[in-house]
Amino acid sequence: MKIAILGYGTVGRGVDTIVSGLEGVEVTRILDLPDRCTEPRMTSDYASIVSDPSIEVVLECMGGLEPAHTFIMQALQAGKSVVTSNKAVVAAHFDEFVRTAERNDACLFIEATCGGGIPWIASILKVRRIDKISNISGIMNGTTNFIVDAMIKEGADFAETLARAQHLGYAEADPSADIDGIDVKNKTIIATSVAFSCACTSEVPVTGIRTLTKADLDLFAAKGLVVKLLGRAVQRNGRYAASVEPVALPARSLEANVAANFNIVSLKGATVGPLKFYGQGAGSLPTGNAMVQDVLDYAAGTRPRYDFSRPLDFDPALLACDYVYRTTMPKPDDAEPFAQGAWLVRNTDPASARALFEQALAQDPTSFMAALPQED
Amino acid sequence: MKIAILGYGTVGRGVDTIVSGLEGVEVTRILDLPDRCTEPRMTSDYASIVSDPSIEVVLECMGGLEPAHTFIMQALQAGKSVVTSNKAVVAAHFDEFVRTAERNDACLFIEATCGGGIPWIASILKVRRIDKISNISGIMNGTTNFIVDAMIKEGADFAETLARAQHLGYAEADPSADIDGIDVKNKTIIATSVAFSCACTSEVPVTGIRTLTKADLDLFAAKGLVVKLLGRAVQRNGRYAASVEPVALPARSLEANVAANFNIVSLKGATVGPLKFYGQGAGSLPTGNAMVQDVLDYAAGTRPRYDFSRPLDFDPALLACDYVYRTTMPKPDDAEPFAQGAWLVRNTDPASARALFEQALAQDPTSFMAALPQED
Repeated sequence: MKIAILGYGTVGRGVDTIVSGLEGVEVTRILDLPDRCTEPRMTSDYASIVSDPSIEVVLECMGGLEPAHTFIMQALQAGKSVVTSNKAVVAAHFDEFVRTAERNDACLFIEATCGGGIPWIASILKVRRIDKISNISGIMNGTTNFIVDAMIKEGADFAETLARAQHLGYAEADPSADIDGIDVKNKTIIATSVAFSCACTSEVPVTGIRTLTKADLDLFAAKGLVVKLLGRAVQRNGRYAASVEPVALPARSLEANVAANFNIVSLKGATVGPLKFYGQGAGSLPTGNAMVQDVLDYAAGTRPRYDFSRPLDFDPALLACDYVYRTTMPKPDDAEPFAQGAWLVRNTDPASARALFEQALAQDPTSFMAALPQED
Repeated sequence: MKIAILGYGTVGRGVDTIVSGLEGVEVTRILDLPDRCTEPRMTSDYASIVSDPSIEVVLECMGGLEPAHTFIMQALQAGKSVVTSNKAVVAAHFDEFVRTAERNDACLFIEATCGGGIPWIASILKVRRIDKISNISGIMNGTTNFIVDAMIKEGADFAETLARAQHLGYAEADPSADIDGIDVKNKTIIATSVAFSCACTSEVPVTGIRTLTKADLDLFAAKGLVVKLLGRAVQRNGRYAASVEPVALPARSLEANVAANFNIVSLKGATVGPLKFYGQGAGSLPTGNAMVQDVLDYAAGTRPRYDFSRPLDFDPALLACDYVYRTTMPKPDDAEPFAQGAWLVRNTDPASARALFEQALAQDPTSFMAALPQED
């Protein structure tokens, strides 16, 4: 089977390396910028790929919204199946891609958009054959997990740890997508849509870890808690909620012990119970591996079906829990002391918690917030 | 699709419950003992199931070697595919079952033999499409994990914790298969055979946790270590090793934080890197779920291929590491002190370690041994 790669960066090269060791699959075309086309397979002319009838699957690993969106649409409209690692474009256009694929007898594969090499989307789809999934959650961003883990283990503060992550290539020069939770938001929207069969929208409240300090980590450690940036979603009685925010977890939980830049993702199914999946959430070979697994699934006849038809109402109250604020903003009347310089608001939902956090940030831009969910 | 269940115990009932909520699959026959046949689907006459052309898949959840072995062979010889949760019979007859299935155009599905509801065998087979797997390991027995976890959290000793596990239904009246590591040995043999494409044999050294005391756990805890019963296997340069034994792991590892009766299984693939899978390793609905997933895979056209053709030599030295012995047997000359009443032998293989442990047990039947592997 002949495939084309769009974008020859970290992930595209990983795909090419992995496919070169397999029989039955061949990368015959690679799309890149004109000045980077250094070998015969490479072209900067996408039309020549879309119109090539020998190409059965297009692997989009360019990232960003455009031209990725246009290229994916053109491939699907040409009846080619698409494998993508691009969480931003799928989170923004999931429904449009799926409808276009169905109309053109093509398929959309998205394993590599969430959790790198972890078989997360495939596992959700598999569990759903039998079970209703009530919860999903996870550490889905390796950069921020690396930062938090290094801050704890080395006693370093945020800025110097971020700089080291950038030096190691774990964080971008502009780190906002990671540290402000945008990357996790996109992954949470995608995984929630697949798990709950609903069109999970962008109303998900999002808070990152930009203001996290070593002192915050010490404050939680004194109470046996570890802060992690989590994406979470739950559905119950025809409603659903999703959030992305720092969460303080028991030090003995699996999540609290995920080190370095690893990811862990969880679901809860009606009969299978809780399942958790741990692995490399990013990187050339792990993410390339996920894309090639999608290609092999396609070759084996797997045709993933996504269904966004369930009219679930967004109700953040389903994720209501206690929230801790470390801020110089005066404690509201309904808040309780939590620790020196920090107070706690009981049983609030993530949207209200985010609104209160924005008030705190307006008065004290260094403020930090974390959810304190009950253990299941 | 019509299926038959052999054995209507914990797992068989779980399968029946789950299938009753699905469309397209129907349990039309159930084999049980004559005095337990209480409804029209039930029979004690296996010949009537094997000869029923409407039955496409037989689900064996009786456990034990016979008559399970004979029944599975008869189903395969009749061209019916078999889904089994029976680790003992698969570990003993894996190669024979696979050859018989191939000769009769039938399939063997074994997800439920290892790790209950965790998609472990399917994940190994999936990873193997791309990667060579160098390592597998795992906490694959919920009963012993429950016992160790409860001993640590409650400060209780082995006998009373085992009694409580029996009371809760987590341990059998005769607990030897669990606490002596036999159950983990069967699962390790199966997973190793699938992961490495070799006929993993019964020469795996096995040590259980029968002699574990609260004082042992305290001794390791003082060094930041937690004891877990692990099955492990590794392959390198045309050789492989496997072992089942107590292993002392860093308290911050994921394995050390697996609580209650949960399981975690790990593999390392060449490009995907480390992957870990956590979930319910046993129980009516999780194990039933794994069997029904196998049925749905069969219905979707999945045909698992097992290959035992690689002539890997068994070389326990591949798993060589340090071992700790808590025993009154005098310290051998090449051993070092480890703690009060315990000594350490450096860089020995699991077969030699087991042989030394048998010497220790002969002199002090309360002796305990644990491996101290290097962190990866």
